[in-house]
Amino acid sequence: MNSHSFDFDEIVEFRGHHSEKWDGMERQFGIPAQEGLAMWVADMDFRAPPSVIARVRDVAESGIFTYFGDLREYHDSIIWWMRERHGWQIESDAIFTTHGLVNAVALCIQAYTNPGDGVVVMSPVYHAFGRVVRANDRQLVECPLAVAPDGTFQMDFDRWDGMMTGNARMLILCSPHNPGGRVWTVEELRGVADFARRHDLILVSDEIHHDLVFPGHRHTVMPLADTGIADRLVVLSATSKSFNVAGMHCGNAIIHDPALRAAFARQIARMAISPNAMSLHMTPALYSPEGAAWLDACVAYLDGNHQLFREGVQAIPGVRMAPMQGTYLAWVDFSGTGMDQAEIAARVAGRARIAASPGPAFGLGGDQHLRFNLAMPRARIREAVERLQAAFDDLQ
Amino acid sequence: MNSHSFDFDEIVEFRGHHSEKWDGMERQFGIPAQEGLAMWVADMDFRAPPSVIARVRDVAESGIFTYFGDLREYHDSIIWWMRERHGWQIESDAIFTTHGLVNAVALCIQAYTNPGDGVVVMSPVYHAFGRVVRANDRQLVECPLAVAPDGTFQMDFDRWDGMMTGNARMLILCSPHNPGGRVWTVEELRGVADFARRHDLILVSDEIHHDLVFPGHRHTVMPLADTGIADRLVVLSATSKSFNVAGMHCGNAIIHDPALRAAFARQIARMAISPNAMSLHMTPALYSPEGAAWLDACVAYLDGNHQLFREGVQAIPGVRMAPMQGTYLAWVDFSGTGMDQAEIAARVAGRARIAASPGPAFGLGGDQHLRFNLAMPRARIREAVERLQAAFDDLQ
Ligand SMILES: Cc1ncc(COP(=O)(O)O)c(C=O)c1O
Ligand SMILES: Cc1ncc(COP(=O)(O)O)c(C=O)c1O
Repeated sequence: MNSHSFDFDEIVEFRGHHSEKWDGMERQFGIPAQEGLAMWVADMDFRAPPSVIARVRDVAESGIFTYFGDLREYHDSIIWWMRERHGWQIESDAIFTTHGLVNAVALCIQAYTNPGDGVVVMSPVYHAFGRVVRANDRQLVECPLAVAPDGTFQMDFDRWDGMMTGNARMLILCSPHNPGGRVWTVEELRGVADFARRHDLILVSDEIHHDLVFPGHRHTVMPLADTGIADRLVVLSATSKSFNVAGMHCGNAIIHDPALRAAFARQIARMAISPNAMSLHMTPALYSPEGAAWLDACVAYLDGNHQLFREGVQAIPGVRMAPMQGTYLAWVDFSGTGMDQAEIAARVAGRARIAASPGPAFGLGGDQHLRFNLAMPRARIREAVERLQAAFDDLQ
Repeated sequence: MNSHSFDFDEIVEFRGHHSEKWDGMERQFGIPAQEGLAMWVADMDFRAPPSVIARVRDVAESGIFTYFGDLREYHDSIIWWMRERHGWQIESDAIFTTHGLVNAVALCIQAYTNPGDGVVVMSPVYHAFGRVVRANDRQLVECPLAVAPDGTFQMDFDRWDGMMTGNARMLILCSPHNPGGRVWTVEELRGVADFARRHDLILVSDEIHHDLVFPGHRHTVMPLADTGIADRLVVLSATSKSFNVAGMHCGNAIIHDPALRAAFARQIARMAISPNAMSLHMTPALYSPEGAAWLDACVAYLDGNHQLFREGVQAIPGVRMAPMQGTYLAWVDFSGTGMDQAEIAARVAGRARIAASPGPAFGLGGDQHLRFNLAMPRARIREAVERLQAAFDDLQ
């Protein structure tokens, strides 16, 4: 199968299919679905890969939705994927299946920290981290990412060292980074590992986007970047973002250290966490050669979207967007327009009729920013660029 | 659609479809799947209803597995079902969706009790209750059910009153009761509510089996049995057992009281509990007129199985089984044979090649018992009876 087998240009109708991104747009943004471009919730406007559609069809035809037994095929597919795609050798006992990765983050917080403890994130970052840290009565410690002149995020360890009070017990790394799609280098990842050791932090490496990396960049899974970190490391990964099946809410915590495994397993037992059978069927159809072919084509397509979109928004005076290295979540800086967040949001929702995620939700450094989801047919990206340029045309 | 549209006699092949009950039998009991009859895990050897197969097929064809939005259709179907089938009027805000009902029990324990508190169950009872109570470092308080001469379980409030030390904070009721299929009467349920009030207990009424009630019996949902209990009541229900979709691990806690709702919602947020999209699609296809027609036919069939099985095992000297009022989980008392649990289990697994759940797992009162799952084509029930009679034929 080659990339020509997949038609990412096709406009698939998501409205009326219980898509939060499309059907929730009017409620959330006041933009009717017929007029709007939905660029907020992080899923794709593409159909899931043919291999998983076929598998779900087979399950439907069997009529069998009973308690699922025998995880070998499921585990083997994860092990295969990590080895083939990430050069990472894991074992079956390392895999703990959760109800998605925010649930996995919650389980980590409960397994490895106590109420009142600090949990460090690098802001701006995926908003659910902060939400779940706070819901668990832990203290959110926001370490601001540095921003290069072109908008690229950078680690800022010296500054962060100065912010540590001794209260923090955990660091949640987003690798690659959401928003903005930084793919951290091995050197940066080693810096993170050193930082975690220096401050005695459990390191939760959320790698949900680690298959979405553009040509010219390379993702390194955390345990390969620093082989000495395994005794304080939990890696989170999932098929959800790579293959557009996030609604199934299934993911994995991959843990090498025996003590960390035992503590995580205790939380799984306490909460009676048990993955749904459909996801267990779907995963081997995704972590497969057929899934890989679809993914490779999809990533190339996303990179094209990224370039088109970046060029388009950078043409607006005062608007800046760093080149993306992966993911489909663009981070756009409107601060050069001199407008405040309310006006930026009002123009984008009201004039451009685009639903984009408001920057402040991502924490420190989010003001005067919006996050745009670029996983859509290219014609829509073109349309989005035109609408944005028009919405700010008084700046030209 | 009438009951003739559904063929429960059909032998559906579950082996090789990741059925824990069938494919896990050899590992758990040493009985090869070709030889054995799987009568342990609580799901059915029937295909799920045609209406849900059609819905899953539609989702497969759409290729859309993205984040699910708009719960109205989902909530409306639950509200409709509770009104039509149980005469119970609930509102959308009362519904909290969990990853199955053991997960819901865990959330209740964490929402409403503290470590060290006592949690009361009526033994013998579904084993996961005790497991999850202990996993949360709560104290399991087993109140033994009384047993009538024919084996029927009965409440024993006077005895249980004497067992309360003031440490208990919660009571988990299994209604209808697993194992054995008692459908509690309104008077018994009022007794439970009085007991909960008397000892200041939160009452968790696990009604997962409440659609599986045989002719001549009537299930009453707890809030209708005692209208004064709502301020300390959580009702658990699901499509999973009624329609044989338990592998999807989706269920609901239905809560009327605002303070109980708020505490439950906090746990949902802490754990980032979020139902999978497929279950949200499936539920309206089950809680529907088509689902109801299938269910009615299924329940009638299960009652036939129950009568055949009971007659057959009661013909074995020293073996007793109470008449069932609902569920498909028969509770068989082998104590009259004078054999100990090990010998009973060895004969049933070794000679009859039947995988049945060992009684002691259900707690106090479980010794010298086995639980048999009767949800299978009638020919297999006949086969099971013959095998059991042969396995104990030296007693004839
Ligand atoms: C970094 C990161 N983690 C987790 C998630 C969501 O995970 P889930 O839907 O599996 O809970 C997202 C979704 O955007 C994300 O970007
Ligand atoms: C009383 C009771 N509650 C809960 C369950 C299981 O619920 P779930 O699979 O949704 O966790 C069962 C399964 O047999 C049961 O009998």
